[in-house]
Amino acid sequence: MIKLKTKIPGARSSKILEELKARNGGWNVPHPLVFSGRGKGAYCEDIDGNVFLDFASQVASNPLGYNHPELIDVVRKCKKISPVKYAGQDFAVEEHLELIKKLLEISPRGMNSAFLINSGAEAVENAGKICMWKRQNAKFSVSFEGAFHGRTLGALSLHHSRPLHREGFPLLQNKELPFNDSASEVLKNMIKRYGADTISFVILEHLQGEGGYRIPNNKMVLGVRSVCKEHGIPYIADEVQAGLGRTGKWWAFEHYNITPDVFSSAKALQVGAVVANRKMFPGKPGIISSTWGGGHVLDMMIGMKIIDIIKRDKLLGRNKKMGDYIVKRLGEIHGISGQRGLGLMCAFDLSNSGLRDNVVIECARLGLLVLGAGEKSIRLIPSYIISEKEIDEALSVIERAVKTCSKSRFSHKGKICDFMGCALDAT
Amino acid sequence: MIKLKTKIPGARSSKILEELKARNGGWNVPHPLVFSGRGKGAYCEDIDGNVFLDFASQVASNPLGYNHPELIDVVRKCKKISPVKYAGQDFAVEEHLELIKKLLEISPRGMNSAFLINSGAEAVENAGKICMWKRQNAKFSVSFEGAFHGRTLGALSLHHSRPLHREGFPLLQNKELPFNDSASEVLKNMIKRYGADTISFVILEHLQGEGGYRIPNNKMVLGVRSVCKEHGIPYIADEVQAGLGRTGKWWAFEHYNITPDVFSSAKALQVGAVVANRKMFPGKPGIISSTWGGGHVLDMMIGMKIIDIIKRDKLLGRNKKMGDYIVKRLGEIHGISGQRGLGLMCAFDLSNSGLRDNVVIECARLGLLVLGAGEKSIRLIPSYIISEKEIDEALSVIERAVKTCSKSRFSHKGKICDFMGCALDAT
Repeated sequence: MIKLKTKIPGARSSKILEELKARNGGWNVPHPLVFSGRGKGAYCEDIDGNVFLDFASQVASNPLGYNHPELIDVVRKCKKISPVKYAGQDFAVEEHLELIKKLLEISPRGMNSAFLINSGAEAVENAGKICMWKRQNAKFSVSFEGAFHGRTLGALSLHHSRPLHREGFPLLQNKELPFNDSASEVLKNMIKRYGADTISFVILEHLQGEGGYRIPNNKMVLGVRSVCKEHGIPYIADEVQAGLGRTGKWWAFEHYNITPDVFSSAKALQVGAVVANRKMFPGKPGIISSTWGGGHVLDMMIGMKIIDIIKRDKLLGRNKKMGDYIVKRLGEIHGISGQRGLGLMCAFDLSNSGLRDNVVIECARLGLLVLGAGEKSIRLIPSYIISEKEIDEALSVIERAVKTCSKSRFSHKGKICDFMGCALDAT
Repeated sequence: MIKLKTKIPGARSSKILEELKARNGGWNVPHPLVFSGRGKGAYCEDIDGNVFLDFASQVASNPLGYNHPELIDVVRKCKKISPVKYAGQDFAVEEHLELIKKLLEISPRGMNSAFLINSGAEAVENAGKICMWKRQNAKFSVSFEGAFHGRTLGALSLHHSRPLHREGFPLLQNKELPFNDSASEVLKNMIKRYGADTISFVILEHLQGEGGYRIPNNKMVLGVRSVCKEHGIPYIADEVQAGLGRTGKWWAFEHYNITPDVFSSAKALQVGAVVANRKMFPGKPGIISSTWGGGHVLDMMIGMKIIDIIKRDKLLGRNKKMGDYIVKRLGEIHGISGQRGLGLMCAFDLSNSGLRDNVVIECARLGLLVLGAGEKSIRLIPSYIISEKEIDEALSVIERAVKTCSKSRFSHKGKICDFMGCALDAT
């Protein structure tokens, strides 16, 4: 249960966050707590002794909750601690092969090769690079309205989510498809106009993450997949946020009964990865590489154990069931709309972005961690061990927060605004 | 001491490497061993029970050798194991601030802010991004002949090392400076022709790594630094490989008594980092970020402990002394030339790239791990705990390998060629 001992943020968290604000060059708008390492399952405790309920899961990177005993065991028993980071593409450890094999076991037939890398952005970069390398006459990539694929400049070139992330940076050539039924027609027109060979790849999140937790319809996905297939254009599924079981299937593209040519994974996997048939990868060595890629022993071991536990505990089915329950219960809350989700990747909308931001902050103040997405959505992405009782607890906080923040001329006050960006221009 | 029980590669290593070759989409040309996790200091043991002497240090990522008891302790006593990866820009842990502070303590005065990220490539991307964001009229970046700054597409745009890494990929606008005395004149001409405002930044490795372990001379560095200062062009030092004490100073740029505007770090630090004065970073939140950046608790803890140990054990001075000893002893070996180094970042040349490749392979066959660099160099980058006795052992292997491989019509045979690329086209 949520248990707050202090106002949020507590004094100790406040002190650390203030110093971080001064020293962290990438200052974002962090949540008003500092994690202590204590906590269990869906609950985490901050350094002030406050217990929060976490429906943000470290932006989908924490699929099994806090202090999972089997994950702690993996680290405690690890025999390759020093160094932890092998230069895995030059100097091999067995875990590199084991993780690849485990990943291929849960990938579609025909996807028999994987490349491990350091982050979701780097997974996307390399998914793109292998397509570009095969198609050296290509002039541009194609991604979707609202897309978020990471922040490195190659990945950022595919970005059509918040303009703030993209503005002011030189980017590679890219064209945008609408996120609706007409996507395949627009793609066909591009092909007609520029030629299929000018397109290096098409990339799609099968449940769009940062851009607003939008679920593409069948017509959009099947149409684009089929145009790509017909014209030999590589089709990449970006599974960095939605993958590894979160949506109730191992990969979100499986909801559409399609197989991409390449897909990226990261977050819940603990390691970045590109998965494809071997023929999609460059045929000679040295074209793609990375010192740490595939070399971090503990990350690979934890990633493998996470896959094992999801299988053994049948968490895919559980995620579907719990996700359905969240969406159903969201329907009972007054003042919100657009409740939706696949498995434990759920969201709802507020009437505007200002109210949305206030509700995120108010939830934190009341002990529930949630994240915004898109213009006016809030995402709910608890860990895969969440229970109905915990969902009820979270939704009662959301209900209360929406009610509070919907009062006319409501605004937050106090310390919390120093960190969560209450006063920021909503660009 | 090196102790080989089997032919290299041993049967068990062979089996894993063959399977990796089939399954790893990023197949490089890995060294012919698979690490067991056993080993001590500069020596590591493979899964066949062979003990190798490591002068490659996981491509400079392993500064304190194998199974350092204090690093093992860090992991054993860590209280934040599950999850290990916090989404550090959104959800804070204390270690994030502590590592930033520790990094700033060993950075030049005035560099009072750092941004943590997932890899060396991402450190370079973000060093570049903060400059680009400040200079929105800029049209191109400037880097040096032979430069290697990473493989993500933004970082790869700065690349002038092996064409193989770069060819076939769409890149951002970049211009190249010669790696010699004339660099500042060429830069001045660029400014005259295009205007200083068109240049987003100049980036330099103060000891060039992959490009051949070349040490720029004072005139080149001071000249370029001064032109950048005069025209307000941000000057980035890429310290990913040379940084954190390897060259006998914390940062390689210190050998030139200059301070860059921004520098990148990674490898030995265990975390990617961008360091600069706060005014170099974007003035509003959300411009740069990353889910895992600054969130991997164990990496940050190990990075901090590495800094502590380097300080306490006065390893900077030791690195200089041992590096000088390596360079002196290299001078006594017949058949090599161009011995050079700063601290423990040493190299020498063979007469051609074919011979160089053969010597690297022969060293591995004899139990010594070394890496090539540039066209025909071999780099020697042992961990900071290396002793004179171990250096003598390494150099006697190198001497023997050079002698063997210099015989006319020498070529390697057998299993080792399946992995180390003996048969590969030397592109």
